[in-house]
Amino acid sequence: MTAPLHRPRPGTPDTQQGMRRRNLSRVMHAVAAEGPLSRASVAGHIGLTRAAVSTLVDELIRAGLLEELGPQRPGGVGRPGSALGVSGRGPAGLGAEVGVDHLAVCAVDLRGEVRTRAELRVGNRGRAPGPVLSDLAALVRQVAEEAAAEGLRPAGLAVAVPGLVARGTRTVVRAPNLDWHDTDVSALLPSEVPLRVDNEANFGALAELWLAADSPADFLHVSAEIGIGAALVVDGQLLRGTRGFAGELGHVPVRPEGPACPCGGRGCLEQYAGEEAVLRAAGVAPGADRVTLLAERAAAGDADTRRALRGAGTALGIALTGAVNLLDPRAVVLGGALSHLAPWLLPSLERELTRRTATPTDGVAVSRFGSDGPLLGAAHSVVRAVLDDPMGVAQAA
Amino acid sequence: MTAPLHRPRPGTPDTQQGMRRRNLSRVMHAVAAEGPLSRASVAGHIGLTRAAVSTLVDELIRAGLLEELGPQRPGGVGRPGSALGVSGRGPAGLGAEVGVDHLAVCAVDLRGEVRTRAELRVGNRGRAPGPVLSDLAALVRQVAEEAAAEGLRPAGLAVAVPGLVARGTRTVVRAPNLDWHDTDVSALLPSEVPLRVDNEANFGALAELWLAADSPADFLHVSAEIGIGAALVVDGQLLRGTRGFAGELGHVPVRPEGPACPCGGRGCLEQYAGEEAVLRAAGVAPGADRVTLLAERAAAGDADTRRALRGAGTALGIALTGAVNLLDPRAVVLGGALSHLAPWLLPSLERELTRRTATPTDGVAVSRFGSDGPLLGAAHSVVRAVLDDPMGVAQAA
Repeated sequence: MTAPLHRPRPGTPDTQQGMRRRNLSRVMHAVAAEGPLSRASVAGHIGLTRAAVSTLVDELIRAGLLEELGPQRPGGVGRPGSALGVSGRGPAGLGAEVGVDHLAVCAVDLRGEVRTRAELRVGNRGRAPGPVLSDLAALVRQVAEEAAAEGLRPAGLAVAVPGLVARGTRTVVRAPNLDWHDTDVSALLPSEVPLRVDNEANFGALAELWLAADSPADFLHVSAEIGIGAALVVDGQLLRGTRGFAGELGHVPVRPEGPACPCGGRGCLEQYAGEEAVLRAAGVAPGADRVTLLAERAAAGDADTRRALRGAGTALGIALTGAVNLLDPRAVVLGGALSHLAPWLLPSLERELTRRTATPTDGVAVSRFGSDGPLLGAAHSVVRAVLDDPMGVAQAA
Repeated sequence: MTAPLHRPRPGTPDTQQGMRRRNLSRVMHAVAAEGPLSRASVAGHIGLTRAAVSTLVDELIRAGLLEELGPQRPGGVGRPGSALGVSGRGPAGLGAEVGVDHLAVCAVDLRGEVRTRAELRVGNRGRAPGPVLSDLAALVRQVAEEAAAEGLRPAGLAVAVPGLVARGTRTVVRAPNLDWHDTDVSALLPSEVPLRVDNEANFGALAELWLAADSPADFLHVSAEIGIGAALVVDGQLLRGTRGFAGELGHVPVRPEGPACPCGGRGCLEQYAGEEAVLRAAGVAPGADRVTLLAERAAAGDADTRRALRGAGTALGIALTGAVNLLDPRAVVLGGALSHLAPWLLPSLERELTRRTATPTDGVAVSRFGSDGPLLGAAHSVVRAVLDDPMGVAQAA
């Protein structure tokens, strides 16, 4: 549940033991990303000798993290080696999401497959954190039991929340759309496994990084829901900010004398492109499944809806111009519920971005995970922690 | 001239040789930062045994990078050890700056002291890159000769330019205030030592990081000159952006329907807070040393000048609100020539920042290096490269 082990902290002396842990992790990552692989292929991937890899592999097989899949299919050079795969039993990652209108939990195995999932539609706005997290705990128990029936053992639980989480803690400092303040999730959500809590935009960006086939290692991920967040990935790592509050795209000033925002500012992006602002501009009353309704109206050619989405796209383009100038990401990815409205948001968004930036990026892509990104990213963050320190997890079990 | 060696790239297998190089670097950094130090103190600082440190130190002394300073002053526990210091002879860093109104070069030794420096006041706006860099080469030769007379040997030359430099290259893609486009500095500035070229805001931020006594490891450095740039330092490293273009604070939209900017946008920060915009708002004609003139007028209470600086501060505050929301830096540091106008810029800047951000940072500090930051940062970047790989430099010499 810490930073990947292949990046030792500056100042930490190298040791044989640390080296061995990093090499075990490299074997797991290679097989997870490229497998099935023979021992020789693993050695080629990570630049160690076959003998060294064999010792590492034996240890990982004994711990139940890798398994022999039998002889590889012919076609390679030399005699066929036995293929190695990541185990589909053993450690699994539990991901959970606290949404404004729903709760969700899933279990993902070390191969990256979602093995079980449960969801509850429930209005959480203004509800106290205790009852919300009690409902979530019931869902977690249900999913853990279903996972156990398939031979899976939760290695950790990661919870995505629509708010700011203080870096290195499990405390939600501020979640305006839930009306939570300084909520210590770990106190209200008892967990038998290591618990991590993070902002939904961060987990959404990690899902994109880890799971999208063609994801670059540097991009800005926009998570547009009722609130608008963002997360910047640099060299395959999240830029979290000093306090963990980076990515507050929703409060970038778009028109500095514009409408007042609950954050204390004026004319913030959320005042133009957040779900409530878009509904208001389109003349649609708030409620459940409003994004679906907006998409239907826009597809049917409704002029008010289309104008509202054009305006939201323009505001997104102005705020993203600032972000692109400051951050120079390779790409901008639009995720979250509003990504389902991309056909009507993107034209005005891209027009602003193109005409305002002298050196534009590769353009704006739409996430294929939509509103599922945060939940998947949460579960996979636990899986990655196992791959980053496989024996640490095996020993803890 | 590459990334610090104590952060091996992910996927690179650890080797004994790599470990040794990193440990040599740790010894150099410890003595440079904390010296004079005994061998035992070095061992304590970097977490290796005294025996291991002695072997490393012997190698560095033989290479002329460390020197024995004789017995340490009494007062410590145990018998006095001989103190080690970084050599004041041997490798040195050459820093150079191409400004709109001047050229400058300096030499800094491994102890971090500026040993010699030369400057030429010359209007470079619209001058072709060839003659500008030919003038710079003459200054470099002069400083290198003066350094050689003191027993110093240039280990590299780093050039700060007021423009965008493509990452990993020495090509200035765009420097609007010089009117340079796609200028390969290495082709026009022959150098007998390794040459690096970077944006002035990046080098200014590095000067702040490495040389300011109380600099945090995470901050946003604003470099306000004729153009306005910025650089973000995260965990002691520059955030460069995918193409090397990160930090373009000057082109963050402040008022999206504002005046047209040469970048193609409208209402960019530079249209309100760049030197030319401030001079225009203050009713002062452009020319040399205009920042000094503005400071004199503001100090004398001139209403137009004070209003112009208030307006520039407001615009800076709006653009920085976006940057702080996106990046969550620990601090914002105002550097560059305009930092000399801080007394009249900061009140309106901080008012905007405070009222617009729900979770403000520690406030805005003023760099003590002012317009010297980029030159110092450039020279020190060469010195740091020597500390990062001491034997690599010794072998190359």
